Amino acid sequence: MHHKKNVNNALIRLIISFFISFFSLHVFAFNGGGSEHLTMPKHDFANGGVNSQPITNMDELMFRQPNPNVNVNGIGIYVYDGMFSLDALGPYQVFKTAALKTFFIAKTKGPITMSNGITINVDKSIAEVAKLDVLLIPGGAGGTAMQTIDPDVLAWIQQIDQTSIYTTSVCTGAWILGAAGLLEGKGAATHWYRANEMLTKFGAEYTGKRWTRDGKYWTSAGVTAGLDMSLALVNHLFGKEYTQAVMLDLEYDPQPPIKGGVPKKSTPIIAQLMQDMYDFFLINFVDCPLGTPGACLFN
Amino acid sequence: MHHKKNVNNALIRLIISFFISFFSLHVFAFNGGGSEHLTMPKHDFANGGVNSQPITNMDELMFRQPNPNVNVNGIGIYVYDGMFSLDALGPYQVFKTAALKTFFIAKTKGPITMSNGITINVDKSIAEVAKLDVLLIPGGAGGTAMQTIDPDVLAWIQQIDQTSIYTTSVCTGAWILGAAGLLEGKGAATHWYRANEMLTKFGAEYTGKRWTRDGKYWTSAGVTAGLDMSLALVNHLFGKEYTQAVMLDLEYDPQPPIKGGVPKKSTPIIAQLMQDMYDFFLINFVDCPLGTPGACLFN
Repeated sequence: MHHKKNVNNALIRLIISFFISFFSLHVFAFNGGGSEHLTMPKHDFANGGVNSQPITNMDELMFRQPNPNVNVNGIGIYVYDGMFSLDALGPYQVFKTAALKTFFIAKTKGPITMSNGITINVDKSIAEVAKLDVLLIPGGAGGTAMQTIDPDVLAWIQQIDQTSIYTTSVCTGAWILGAAGLLEGKGAATHWYRANEMLTKFGAEYTGKRWTRDGKYWTSAGVTAGLDMSLALVNHLFGKEYTQAVMLDLEYDPQPPIKGGVPKKSTPIIAQLMQDMYDFFLINFVDCPLGTPGACLFN
Repeated sequence: MHHKKNVNNALIRLIISFFISFFSLHVFAFNGGGSEHLTMPKHDFANGGVNSQPITNMDELMFRQPNPNVNVNGIGIYVYDGMFSLDALGPYQVFKTAALKTFFIAKTKGPITMSNGITINVDKSIAEVAKLDVLLIPGGAGGTAMQTIDPDVLAWIQQIDQTSIYTTSVCTGAWILGAAGLLEGKGAATHWYRANEMLTKFGAEYTGKRWTRDGKYWTSAGVTAGLDMSLALVNHLFGKEYTQAVMLDLEYDPQPPIKGGVPKKSTPIIAQLMQDMYDFFLINFVDCPLGTPGACLFN
Protein backbone atom coordinates (compact mmCIF):
# COMPACT_ATOMS: atom_id res chain seq x y z
CA MET A 1 0.00 0.00 0.00
CA HIS A 2 1.02 3.62 -0.28
CA HIS A 3 2.36 6.09 2.20
CA LYS A 4 1.50 9.73 2.47
CA LYS A 5 4.04 11.68 0.49
CA ASN A 6 6.20 14.24 2.23
CA VAL A 7 4.95 17.66 1.28
CA ASN A 8 6.36 20.86 2.68
CA ASN A 9 3.78 22.08 5.19
CA ALA A 10 4.05 25.65 3.99
CA LEU A 11 2.63 24.49 0.69
CA ILE A 12 -0.52 22.94 2.07
CA ARG A 13 -2.67 26.03 1.83
CA LEU A 14 -1.55 26.49 -1.74
CA ILE A 15 -2.23 22.88 -2.64
CA ILE A 16 -5.73 23.27 -1.27
CA SER A 17 -6.42 26.46 -3.11
CA PHE A 18 -5.07 25.04 -6.33
CA PHE A 19 -6.71 21.78 -7.09
CA ILE A 20 -8.51 20.07 -4.31
CA SER A 21 -11.53 20.77 -2.20
CA PHE A 22 -11.38 18.45 0.77
CA PHE A 23 -13.87 18.68 3.60
CA SER A 24 -14.17 22.36 2.96
CA LEU A 25 -16.60 24.14 0.72
CA HIS A 26 -14.93 27.47 0.83
CA VAL A 27 -11.30 26.75 0.11
CA PHE A 28 -11.50 28.55 -3.19
CA ALA A 29 -12.10 31.77 -1.32
CA PHE A 30 -8.32 31.69 -0.98
CA ASN A 31 -7.78 31.55 -4.72
CA GLY A 32 -5.28 33.99 -6.00
CA GLY A 33 -5.25 35.81 -2.71
CA GLY A 34 -1.50 35.67 -2.64
CA SER A 35 -1.14 37.26 -6.02
CA GLU A 36 -3.72 40.00 -5.97
CA HIS A 37 -1.19 42.74 -5.52
CA LEU A 38 1.45 41.35 -7.83
CA THR A 39 1.64 42.67 -11.32
CA MET A 40 3.84 40.63 -13.59
CA PRO A 41 5.29 41.96 -16.83
CA LYS A 42 3.37 41.12 -19.97
CA HIS A 43 5.09 38.76 -22.33
CA ASP A 44 4.80 37.98 -25.97
CA PHE A 45 4.04 34.29 -25.84
CA ALA A 46 4.81 33.82 -29.49
CA ASN A 47 8.40 34.50 -28.47
CA GLY A 48 8.24 32.48 -25.25
CA GLY A 49 7.10 34.14 -22.03
CA VAL A 50 8.10 33.10 -18.52
CA ASN A 51 5.43 30.44 -18.64
CA SER A 52 6.94 28.69 -21.61
CA GLN A 53 9.37 27.11 -19.12
CA PRO A 54 8.41 23.49 -18.43
CA ILE A 55 7.25 22.46 -14.96
CA THR A 56 9.53 19.89 -13.35
CA ASN A 57 8.51 19.73 -9.68
CA MET A 58 5.69 20.41 -7.22
CA ASP A 59 6.90 23.91 -6.35
CA GLU A 60 6.92 24.97 -9.99
CA LEU A 61 3.43 23.58 -10.45
CA MET A 62 1.97 25.18 -7.36
CA PHE A 63 3.66 28.55 -7.52
CA ARG A 64 3.14 29.22 -11.20
CA GLN A 65 1.35 32.54 -11.71
CA PRO A 66 -0.75 33.54 -14.69
CA ASN A 67 1.09 35.82 -17.07
CA PRO A 68 -0.28 38.39 -17.64
CA ASN A 69 -1.61 38.34 -14.10
CA VAL A 70 -5.38 38.23 -14.50
CA ASN A 71 -5.80 37.78 -10.74
CA VAL A 72 -5.48 41.50 -10.02
CA ASN A 73 -9.03 42.42 -11.03
CA GLY A 74 -10.00 38.84 -11.80
CA ILE A 75 -12.21 37.05 -14.29
CA GLY A 76 -15.81 38.24 -14.27
CA ILE A 77 -18.50 36.09 -15.86
CA TYR A 78 -21.57 38.18 -16.68
CA VAL A 79 -24.75 36.13 -16.12
CA TYR A 80 -28.39 36.80 -16.96
CA ASP A 81 -31.81 35.15 -16.99
CA GLY A 82 -32.29 32.72 -19.86
CA MET A 83 -28.59 32.13 -20.56
CA PHE A 84 -27.34 28.62 -21.33
CA SER A 85 -25.87 27.24 -18.11
CA LEU A 86 -22.85 25.40 -19.54
CA ASP A 87 -21.71 28.55 -21.40
CA ALA A 88 -20.81 30.02 -18.02
CA LEU A 89 -20.39 27.01 -15.74
CA GLY A 90 -17.96 25.19 -18.06
CA PRO A 91 -15.42 28.04 -18.19
CA TYR A 92 -16.06 28.76 -14.49
CA GLN A 93 -15.02 25.20 -13.62
CA VAL A 94 -11.92 25.44 -15.83
CA PHE A 95 -10.80 28.80 -14.39
CA LYS A 96 -11.45 27.72 -10.79
CA THR A 97 -9.52 24.50 -11.31
CA ALA A 98 -6.66 26.64 -12.62
CA ALA A 99 -6.85 28.61 -9.32
CA LEU A 100 -7.84 31.81 -11.08
CA LYS A 101 -9.89 34.47 -9.29
CA THR A 102 -13.28 33.98 -10.96
CA PHE A 103 -16.74 35.24 -10.05
CA PHE A 104 -20.21 35.93 -11.42
CA ILE A 105 -21.67 39.39 -12.04
CA ALA A 106 -25.29 40.24 -12.89
CA LYS A 107 -27.12 43.43 -13.77
CA THR A 108 -28.53 43.38 -10.25
CA LYS A 109 -27.67 41.15 -7.31
CA GLY A 110 -29.85 38.16 -6.60
CA PRO A 111 -31.01 34.97 -8.29
CA ILE A 112 -30.37 34.30 -11.98
CA THR A 113 -32.29 31.48 -13.62
CA MET A 114 -30.68 29.81 -16.60
CA SER A 115 -32.55 28.40 -19.59
CA ASN A 116 -32.50 24.87 -18.18
CA GLY A 117 -33.93 25.97 -14.85
CA ILE A 118 -30.76 26.09 -12.74
CA THR A 119 -30.83 29.08 -10.39
CA ILE A 120 -27.71 30.61 -8.84
CA ASN A 121 -27.40 33.55 -6.50
CA VAL A 122 -25.15 36.34 -7.71
CA ASP A 123 -23.66 38.71 -5.16
CA LYS A 124 -21.97 41.25 -7.46
CA SER A 125 -23.85 43.77 -9.60
CA ILE A 126 -22.46 45.62 -12.61
CA ALA A 127 -22.64 48.85 -10.59
CA GLU A 128 -20.05 47.39 -8.21
CA VAL A 129 -17.55 46.23 -10.83
CA ALA A 130 -15.60 48.91 -12.68
CA LYS A 131 -12.59 46.87 -13.80
CA LEU A 132 -11.96 43.28 -14.83
CA ASP A 133 -8.89 41.61 -16.25
CA VAL A 134 -11.08 39.16 -18.15
CA LEU A 135 -14.73 39.60 -19.05
CA LEU A 136 -16.65 36.54 -20.25
CA ILE A 137 -20.15 36.82 -21.76
CA PRO A 138 -22.14 33.58 -22.10
CA GLY A 139 -24.84 33.01 -24.70
CA GLY A 140 -28.39 31.79 -24.93
CA ALA A 141 -31.38 32.35 -27.20
CA GLY A 142 -34.17 34.80 -26.32
CA GLY A 143 -32.51 35.89 -23.09
CA THR A 144 -29.41 36.81 -25.07
CA ALA A 145 -31.39 38.79 -27.64
CA MET A 146 -32.83 40.81 -24.75
CA GLN A 147 -29.31 41.66 -23.53
CA THR A 148 -28.37 43.04 -26.95
CA ILE A 149 -30.95 45.82 -26.55
CA ASP A 150 -30.23 46.70 -22.91
CA PRO A 151 -28.35 50.03 -22.94
CA ASP A 152 -27.16 49.70 -19.32
CA VAL A 153 -25.62 46.31 -19.99
CA LEU A 154 -23.98 47.43 -23.25
CA ALA A 155 -22.56 50.56 -21.61
CA TRP A 156 -21.10 48.52 -18.75
CA ILE A 157 -19.49 46.06 -21.18
CA GLN A 158 -17.96 48.96 -23.13
CA GLN A 159 -16.60 50.42 -19.88
CA ILE A 160 -15.08 47.11 -18.75
CA ASP A 161 -13.59 46.58 -22.20
CA GLN A 162 -11.66 49.86 -21.99
CA THR A 163 -9.26 48.41 -19.41
CA SER A 164 -9.72 44.64 -19.73
CA ILE A 165 -6.77 42.49 -20.70
CA TYR A 166 -9.10 40.08 -22.51
CA THR A 167 -12.75 40.47 -23.52
CA THR A 168 -14.37 37.13 -24.33
CA SER A 169 -17.64 35.44 -25.22
CA VAL A 170 -19.02 31.92 -25.47
CA CYS A 171 -21.69 30.89 -27.99
CA THR A 172 -24.19 33.65 -28.83
CA GLY A 173 -22.53 35.80 -26.16
CA ALA A 174 -20.81 37.21 -29.27
CA TRP A 175 -24.16 38.81 -30.19
CA ILE A 176 -23.86 40.92 -27.03
CA LEU A 177 -20.22 41.85 -27.68
CA GLY A 178 -21.25 42.68 -31.24
CA ALA A 179 -24.17 44.84 -30.12
CA ALA A 180 -21.73 46.69 -27.86
CA GLY A 181 -19.71 47.48 -30.99
CA LEU A 182 -16.66 45.52 -29.88
CA LEU A 183 -16.41 43.07 -32.81
CA GLU A 184 -16.31 45.66 -35.60
CA GLY A 185 -13.67 44.60 -38.13
CA LYS A 186 -12.78 41.46 -36.21
CA GLY A 187 -12.87 37.74 -36.83
CA ALA A 188 -15.07 35.93 -34.34
CA ALA A 189 -16.58 32.57 -33.47
CA THR A 190 -20.15 32.07 -32.24
CA HIS A 191 -22.88 29.40 -32.20
CA TRP A 192 -23.39 28.06 -35.75
CA TYR A 193 -27.04 29.22 -35.91
CA ARG A 194 -27.25 32.07 -38.50
CA ALA A 195 -23.66 32.89 -37.54
CA ASN A 196 -22.78 34.66 -40.79
CA GLU A 197 -25.91 36.81 -40.77
CA MET A 198 -25.50 37.79 -37.13
CA LEU A 199 -21.78 38.60 -37.20
CA THR A 200 -22.11 40.50 -40.48
CA LYS A 201 -24.60 42.80 -38.75
CA PHE A 202 -21.89 43.68 -36.23
CA GLY A 203 -19.22 44.25 -38.88
CA ALA A 204 -17.43 41.06 -37.83
CA GLU A 205 -16.43 38.01 -39.84
CA TYR A 206 -17.53 34.50 -38.79
CA THR A 207 -14.47 32.27 -38.64
CA GLY A 208 -16.30 28.97 -38.11
CA LYS A 209 -13.54 27.97 -35.68
CA ARG A 210 -13.96 26.31 -32.27
CA TRP A 211 -12.58 29.54 -30.81
CA THR A 212 -10.95 32.62 -32.28
CA ARG A 213 -8.51 35.11 -30.82
CA ASP A 214 -8.38 38.49 -32.54
CA GLY A 215 -6.24 40.86 -30.53
CA LYS A 216 -7.57 40.84 -27.00
CA TYR A 217 -10.94 39.44 -28.11
CA TRP A 218 -11.53 35.72 -27.63
CA THR A 219 -14.81 34.26 -28.90
CA SER A 220 -15.95 30.63 -28.98
CA ALA A 221 -18.47 28.50 -30.84
CA GLY A 222 -21.61 27.24 -29.09
CA VAL A 223 -22.03 26.11 -25.46
CA THR A 224 -19.44 23.33 -25.03
CA ALA A 225 -16.82 25.32 -26.99
CA GLY A 226 -16.46 27.46 -23.88
CA LEU A 227 -14.53 24.57 -22.32
CA ASP A 228 -12.02 24.53 -25.16
CA MET A 229 -11.65 28.32 -25.24
CA SER A 230 -11.17 28.64 -21.50
CA LEU A 231 -8.54 25.89 -21.56
CA ALA A 232 -6.84 27.71 -24.45
CA LEU A 233 -6.80 30.85 -22.30
CA VAL A 234 -5.34 28.88 -19.37
CA ASN A 235 -2.71 27.54 -21.77
CA HIS A 236 -1.95 31.09 -22.90
CA LEU A 237 -1.62 32.32 -19.30
CA PHE A 238 0.22 29.39 -17.71
CA GLY A 239 1.78 27.24 -20.42
CA LYS A 240 1.24 23.65 -21.47
CA GLU A 241 2.21 21.70 -18.34
CA TYR A 242 -0.07 23.67 -16.02
CA THR A 243 -2.90 23.29 -18.53
CA GLN A 244 -2.30 19.55 -18.61
CA ALA A 245 -2.64 19.51 -14.82
CA VAL A 246 -6.04 21.22 -15.15
CA MET A 247 -7.07 18.83 -17.93
CA LEU A 248 -6.07 15.84 -15.79
CA ASP A 249 -8.20 17.15 -12.95
CA LEU A 250 -11.15 17.42 -15.35
CA GLU A 251 -10.10 14.27 -17.25
CA TYR A 252 -10.66 16.29 -20.41
CA ASP A 253 -10.05 13.79 -23.20
CA PRO A 254 -13.43 14.11 -24.93
CA GLN A 255 -14.89 11.25 -26.95
CA PRO A 256 -18.34 12.09 -28.32
CA PRO A 257 -20.45 8.93 -28.78
CA ILE A 258 -21.27 9.80 -32.40
CA LYS A 259 -20.15 12.26 -35.06
CA GLY A 260 -21.92 15.62 -34.98
CA GLY A 261 -21.95 18.91 -33.11
CA VAL A 262 -21.70 21.13 -36.17
CA PRO A 263 -23.94 21.15 -39.27
CA LYS A 264 -21.28 19.83 -41.64
CA LYS A 265 -20.67 16.76 -39.43
CA SER A 266 -24.41 16.09 -38.92
CA THR A 267 -27.10 14.39 -40.99
CA PRO A 268 -28.20 17.25 -43.31
CA ILE A 269 -31.91 16.96 -42.51
CA ILE A 270 -31.21 17.23 -38.76
CA ALA A 271 -29.10 20.37 -39.21
CA GLN A 272 -31.89 21.85 -41.35
CA LEU A 273 -34.61 20.95 -38.84
CA MET A 274 -32.65 22.51 -35.99
CA GLN A 275 -32.18 25.72 -37.96
CA ASP A 276 -35.91 25.75 -38.77
CA MET A 277 -36.70 25.28 -35.10
CA TYR A 278 -34.48 28.17 -34.01
CA ASP A 279 -35.82 30.30 -36.88
CA PHE A 280 -39.33 29.96 -35.55
CA PHE A 281 -38.32 31.97 -32.48
CA LEU A 282 -35.33 33.97 -33.60
CA ILE A 283 -35.57 34.81 -37.30
CA ASN A 284 -37.26 38.18 -36.73
CA PHE A 285 -34.35 39.13 -34.49
CA VAL A 286 -31.78 37.82 -36.97
CA ASP A 287 -33.40 39.76 -39.82
CA CYS A 288 -33.74 42.99 -37.86
CA PRO A 289 -31.36 45.78 -38.91
CA LEU A 290 -28.90 46.72 -36.15
CA GLY A 291 -30.03 49.74 -34.18
CA THR A 292 -33.76 49.19 -34.70
CA PRO A 293 -35.50 50.07 -31.44
CA GLY A 294 -36.64 46.86 -29.78
CA ALA A 295 -34.51 44.89 -32.25
CA CYS A 296 -37.77 43.64 -33.85
CA LEU A 297 -38.06 41.22 -30.94
CA PHE A 298 -41.75 41.81 -30.49
CA ASN A 299 -42.80 42.18 -34.13
CA MET B 1 -33.76 37.92 -45.83
CA HIS B 2 -35.67 35.01 -44.36
CA HIS B 3 -39.29 34.42 -43.60
CA LYS B 4 -40.72 32.70 -40.59
CA LYS B 5 -41.29 29.07 -41.46
CA ASN B 6 -44.77 27.62 -41.28
CA VAL B 7 -44.97 25.48 -38.19
CA ASN B 8 -48.12 23.72 -37.07
CA ASN B 9 -49.38 25.74 -34.10
CA ALA B 10 -50.19 22.64 -32.12
CA LEU B 11 -46.49 21.87 -32.06
CA ILE B 12 -45.37 25.15 -30.55
CA ARG B 13 -45.56 24.03 -26.95
CA LEU B 14 -43.56 20.95 -27.84
CA ILE B 15 -40.95 22.94 -29.73
CA ILE B 16 -40.54 25.15 -26.70
CA SER B 17 -40.23 22.29 -24.29
CA PHE B 18 -37.77 20.51 -26.51
CA PHE B 19 -34.98 22.80 -27.44
CA ILE B 20 -35.50 26.46 -26.91
CA SER B 21 -36.00 28.74 -23.98
CA PHE B 22 -37.30 32.02 -25.30
CA PHE B 23 -38.39 34.82 -22.99
CA SER B 24 -39.43 32.24 -20.48
CA LEU B 25 -37.39 30.81 -17.67
CA HIS B 26 -39.71 28.03 -16.81
CA VAL B 27 -40.53 26.41 -20.11
CA PHE B 28 -38.66 23.30 -19.12
CA ALA B 29 -41.21 22.71 -16.41
CA PHE B 30 -43.22 21.29 -19.31
CA ASN B 31 -40.54 18.77 -20.17
CA GLY B 32 -41.82 15.29 -20.62
CA GLY B 33 -45.19 16.24 -19.22
CA GLY B 34 -46.89 14.71 -22.20
CA SER B 35 -45.22 11.40 -21.75
CA GLU B 36 -45.29 10.89 -18.03
CA HIS B 37 -48.07 8.36 -18.16
CA LEU B 38 -46.93 6.55 -21.25
CA THR B 39 -44.96 3.38 -20.85
CA MET B 40 -43.33 2.18 -24.02
CA PRO B 41 -42.14 -1.37 -24.55
CA LYS B 42 -38.47 -2.02 -23.87
CA HIS B 43 -36.39 -2.84 -26.88
CA ASP B 44 -33.12 -4.58 -27.45
CA PHE B 45 -31.21 -1.86 -29.22
CA ALA B 46 -28.55 -4.25 -30.39
CA ASN B 47 -31.27 -5.64 -32.62
CA GLY B 48 -32.73 -2.26 -33.58
CA GLY B 49 -35.44 -0.70 -31.42
CA VAL B 50 -38.13 1.70 -32.58
CA ASN B 51 -35.65 4.54 -32.27
CA SER B 52 -33.28 3.06 -34.81
CA GLN B 53 -35.62 4.55 -37.44
CA PRO B 54 -34.10 7.69 -38.96
CA ILE B 55 -35.77 11.07 -38.40
CA THR B 56 -36.92 12.69 -41.64
CA ASN B 57 -39.17 15.58 -40.62
CA MET B 58 -40.04 18.01 -37.80
CA ASP B 59 -42.83 15.82 -36.41
CA GLU B 60 -40.55 12.83 -36.08
CA LEU B 61 -37.94 14.97 -34.36
CA MET B 62 -40.33 16.59 -31.93
CA PHE B 63 -42.50 13.62 -31.09
CA ARG B 64 -39.74 11.08 -30.60
CA GLN B 65 -40.00 9.48 -27.19
CA PRO B 66 -37.19 7.88 -25.20
CA ASN B 67 -37.25 4.11 -25.37
CA PRO B 68 -37.32 2.75 -22.74
CA ASN B 69 -39.40 5.63 -21.43
CA VAL B 70 -37.29 7.14 -18.66
CA ASN B 71 -39.77 10.00 -18.28
CA VAL B 72 -42.13 7.98 -16.08
CA ASN B 73 -40.11 8.35 -12.88
CA GLY B 74 -37.48 10.54 -14.49
CA ILE B 75 -33.75 11.06 -14.18
CA GLY B 76 -32.61 11.93 -10.66
CA ILE B 77 -29.18 13.47 -10.13
CA TYR B 78 -28.07 13.01 -6.52
CA VAL B 79 -26.10 16.07 -5.37
CA TYR B 80 -24.07 16.74 -2.22
CA ASP B 81 -21.72 19.28 -0.67
CA GLY B 82 -18.21 19.19 -2.12
CA MET B 83 -19.14 17.46 -5.38
CA PHE B 84 -17.56 18.61 -8.65
CA SER B 85 -20.09 20.87 -10.35
CA LEU B 86 -19.58 19.76 -13.97
CA ASP B 87 -20.09 16.09 -13.00
CA ALA B 88 -23.75 16.93 -12.43
CA LEU B 89 -24.35 20.08 -14.47
CA GLY B 90 -22.89 18.67 -17.70
CA PRO B 91 -25.24 15.66 -17.84
CA TYR B 92 -28.09 17.85 -16.54
CA GLN B 93 -27.66 20.17 -19.53
CA VAL B 94 -27.51 17.23 -21.95
CA PHE B 95 -30.63 15.54 -20.53
CA LYS B 96 -32.60 18.80 -20.39
CA THR B 97 -31.66 19.63 -23.97
CA ALA B 98 -32.96 16.17 -24.90
CA ALA B 99 -36.26 17.13 -23.20
CA LEU B 100 -35.88 14.43 -20.55
CA LYS B 101 -37.49 14.83 -17.14
CA THR B 102 -34.42 15.58 -15.02
CA PHE B 103 -34.07 16.92 -11.48
CA PHE B 104 -31.72 17.16 -8.51
CA ILE B 105 -32.11 15.25 -5.25
CA ALA B 106 -30.16 15.79 -2.03
CA LYS B 107 -30.05 14.04 1.33
CA THR B 108 -32.06 16.95 2.70
CA LYS B 109 -33.72 19.85 0.88
CA GLY B 110 -31.91 23.15 0.71
CA PRO B 111 -28.66 24.59 -0.61
CA ILE B 112 -25.84 22.36 -1.86
CA THR B 113 -22.43 23.95 -2.33
CA MET B 114 -20.15 22.38 -4.89
CA SER B 115 -16.37 22.18 -4.64
CA ASN B 116 -15.89 25.27 -6.80
CA GLY B 117 -18.26 27.36 -4.70
CA ILE B 118 -21.41 27.21 -6.85
CA THR B 119 -24.51 26.85 -4.68
CA ILE B 120 -27.82 25.51 -5.95
CA ASN B 121 -31.07 25.01 -4.10
CA VAL B 122 -32.44 21.49 -4.14
CA ASP B 123 -36.13 20.95 -3.53
CA LYS B 124 -36.30 17.15 -3.42
CA SER B 125 -34.92 15.04 -0.57
CA ILE B 126 -34.09 11.34 -0.74
CA ALA B 127 -36.99 10.68 1.65
CA GLU B 128 -39.37 11.96 -1.04
CA VAL B 129 -38.01 9.90 -3.93
CA ALA B 130 -38.70 6.17 -3.88
CA LYS B 131 -38.33 5.38 -7.58
CA LEU B 132 -36.23 6.70 -10.44
CA ASP B 133 -35.83 5.47 -13.99
CA VAL B 134 -32.26 6.77 -14.06
CA LEU B 135 -30.07 7.55 -11.07
CA LEU B 136 -26.90 9.56 -11.66
CA ILE B 137 -24.24 9.98 -8.95
CA PRO B 138 -21.61 12.69 -9.53
CA GLY B 139 -18.11 12.59 -8.07
CA GLY B 140 -15.74 14.79 -6.16
CA ALA B 141 -12.86 14.33 -3.72
CA GLY B 142 -13.33 14.60 0.05
CA GLY B 143 -17.06 15.23 -0.22
CA THR B 144 -17.40 12.00 -2.18
CA ALA B 145 -15.40 10.01 0.36
CA MET B 146 -17.85 11.23 3.01
CA GLN B 147 -20.79 9.91 0.98
CA THR B 148 -19.23 6.44 0.82
CA ILE B 149 -19.58 6.10 4.60
CA ASP B 150 -23.08 7.55 4.95
CA PRO B 151 -25.43 4.60 5.63
CA ASP B 152 -28.60 6.60 4.85
CA VAL B 153 -27.28 7.60 1.44
CA LEU B 154 -26.06 4.10 0.60
CA ALA B 155 -29.37 2.53 1.67
CA TRP B 156 -31.32 4.99 -0.49
CA ILE B 157 -29.11 4.26 -3.51
CA GLN B 158 -29.64 0.52 -3.01
CA GLN B 159 -33.40 1.07 -2.81
CA ILE B 160 -33.50 3.19 -5.99
CA ASP B 161 -31.31 0.65 -7.78
CA GLN B 162 -33.83 -2.13 -7.15
CA THR B 163 -36.28 -0.65 -9.66
CA SER B 164 -34.13 1.72 -11.75
CA ILE B 165 -33.81 1.13 -15.46
CA TYR B 166 -30.26 2.53 -15.39
CA THR B 167 -27.96 3.27 -12.44
CA THR B 168 -25.11 5.56 -13.41
CA SER B 169 -22.15 7.52 -12.07
CA VAL B 170 -19.74 10.18 -13.28
CA CYS B 171 -16.11 10.41 -12.13
CA THR B 172 -15.54 9.26 -8.53
CA GLY B 173 -19.31 8.88 -8.18
CA ALA B 174 -18.37 5.24 -8.88
CA TRP B 175 -16.82 5.15 -5.39
CA ILE B 176 -20.32 5.70 -3.99
CA LEU B 177 -21.94 3.08 -6.23
CA GLY B 178 -19.11 0.75 -5.25
CA ALA B 179 -19.56 1.42 -1.54
CA ALA B 180 -23.25 0.61 -2.01
CA GLY B 181 -22.16 -2.79 -3.34
CA LEU B 182 -23.54 -2.21 -6.83
CA LEU B 183 -20.34 -2.66 -8.85
CA GLU B 184 -19.40 -6.12 -7.54
CA GLY B 185 -18.22 -8.25 -10.46
CA LYS B 186 -18.70 -5.44 -12.96
CA GLY B 187 -16.52 -3.48 -15.33
CA ALA B 188 -16.59 0.23 -14.57
CA ALA B 189 -15.06 3.58 -15.48
CA THR B 190 -14.11 6.26 -12.95
CA HIS B 191 -11.67 9.18 -12.56
CA TRP B 192 -8.13 7.98 -13.35
CA TYR B 193 -6.83 8.79 -9.84
CA ARG B 194 -6.02 5.44 -8.11
CA ALA B 195 -8.79 3.94 -10.23
CA ASN B 196 -7.51 0.35 -10.08
CA GLU B 197 -7.03 0.42 -6.31
CA MET B 198 -10.44 1.95 -5.67
CA LEU B 199 -12.48 -0.27 -8.00
CA THR B 200 -10.67 -3.41 -6.84
CA LYS B 201 -11.87 -2.63 -3.31
CA PHE B 202 -15.44 -2.79 -4.59
CA GLY B 203 -14.91 -6.03 -6.51
CA ALA B 204 -15.12 -4.16 -9.82
CA GLU B 205 -12.69 -3.97 -12.71
CA TYR B 206 -11.41 -0.61 -14.00
CA THR B 207 -11.94 -0.48 -17.76
CA GLY B 208 -10.02 2.75 -18.41
CA LYS B 209 -12.73 3.70 -20.93
CA ARG B 210 -14.40 7.10 -21.35
CA TRP B 211 -17.58 5.39 -20.21
CA THR B 212 -18.60 1.78 -19.64
CA ARG B 213 -21.97 0.08 -19.77
CA ASP B 214 -22.22 -3.21 -17.89
CA GLY B 215 -25.82 -4.36 -17.81
CA LYS B 216 -27.88 -1.50 -16.49
CA TYR B 217 -24.84 0.18 -14.91
CA TRP B 218 -23.27 3.08 -16.78
CA THR B 219 -20.13 4.65 -15.33
CA SER B 220 -17.91 7.37 -16.78
CA ALA B 221 -14.37 8.65 -16.38
CA GLY B 222 -13.68 11.97 -14.62
CA VAL B 223 -15.75 15.17 -14.68
CA THR B 224 -16.05 16.03 -18.40
CA ALA B 225 -16.65 12.37 -19.31
CA GLY B 226 -20.15 12.85 -17.93
CA LEU B 227 -20.95 14.80 -21.11
CA ASP B 228 -19.92 11.89 -23.32
CA MET B 229 -21.72 9.29 -21.19
CA SER B 230 -24.96 11.27 -21.00
CA LEU B 231 -24.90 11.78 -24.77
CA ALA B 232 -24.30 8.04 -25.17
CA LEU B 233 -27.36 7.41 -23.01
CA VAL B 234 -29.40 9.87 -25.11
CA ASN B 235 -28.19 8.01 -28.19
CA HIS B 236 -29.26 4.72 -26.62
CA LEU B 237 -32.72 6.10 -25.75
CA PHE B 238 -33.48 8.12 -28.88
CA GLY B 239 -31.18 7.05 -31.70
CA LYS B 240 -28.52 8.87 -33.67
CA GLU B 241 -30.50 11.67 -35.35
CA TYR B 242 -32.09 12.92 -32.16
CA THR B 243 -28.68 12.83 -30.46
CA GLN B 244 -27.23 14.85 -33.32
CA ALA B 245 -29.95 17.44 -32.73
CA VAL B 246 -28.89 17.68 -29.07
CA MET B 247 -25.21 17.86 -30.06
CA LEU B 248 -25.98 20.66 -32.54
CA ASP B 249 -27.75 22.61 -29.81
CA LEU B 250 -24.66 22.22 -27.60
CA GLU B 251 -22.29 22.52 -30.60
CA TYR B 252 -20.51 19.49 -29.17
CA ASP B 253 -17.56 19.00 -31.49
CA PRO B 254 -14.81 19.21 -28.86
CA GLN B 255 -11.30 20.37 -29.76
CA PRO B 256 -9.02 20.51 -26.71
CA PRO B 257 -6.28 23.13 -27.15
CA ILE B 258 -3.52 20.65 -26.30
CA LYS B 259 -3.11 16.91 -25.84
CA GLY B 260 -3.84 15.64 -22.34
CA GLY B 261 -6.72 14.78 -20.04
CA VAL B 262 -5.49 11.31 -19.10
CA PRO B 263 -2.10 10.32 -17.66
CA LYS B 264 -0.92 8.46 -20.76
CA LYS B 265 -1.53 11.52 -22.97
CA SER B 266 0.12 13.93 -20.49
CA THR B 267 3.70 14.88 -19.72
CA PRO B 268 4.72 12.09 -17.27
CA ILE B 269 5.96 14.44 -14.53
CA ILE B 270 2.64 16.35 -14.56
CA ALA B 271 0.60 13.16 -14.20
CA GLN B 272 2.88 12.10 -11.33
CA LEU B 273 2.63 15.48 -9.59
CA MET B 274 -1.16 15.44 -9.84
CA GLN B 275 -1.31 11.97 -8.32
CA ASP B 276 1.04 13.10 -5.53
CA MET B 277 -1.19 16.09 -4.88
CA TYR B 278 -4.36 13.98 -4.64
CA ASP B 279 -2.49 11.41 -2.52
CA PHE B 280 -1.73 14.03 0.06
CA PHE B 281 -5.44 14.28 0.86
CA LEU B 282 -6.87 10.98 -0.25
CA ILE B 283 -4.31 8.20 0.11
CA ASN B 284 -5.46 7.20 3.60
CA PHE B 285 -8.95 6.75 2.20
CA VAL B 286 -7.67 4.84 -0.83
CA ASP B 287 -5.61 2.52 1.38
CA CYS B 288 -8.39 1.91 3.89
CA PRO B 289 -9.96 -1.58 3.74
CA LEU B 290 -13.62 -1.50 2.71
CA GLY B 291 -15.96 -1.62 5.68
CA THR B 292 -13.58 0.05 8.15
CA PRO B 293 -15.66 2.37 10.34
CA GLY B 294 -14.95 5.95 9.31
CA ALA B 295 -13.17 4.65 6.20
CA CYS B 296 -9.87 5.86 7.76
CA LEU B 297 -10.87 9.37 6.70
CA PHE B 298 -9.76 10.92 9.94
CA ASN B 299 -6.66 8.81 10.63
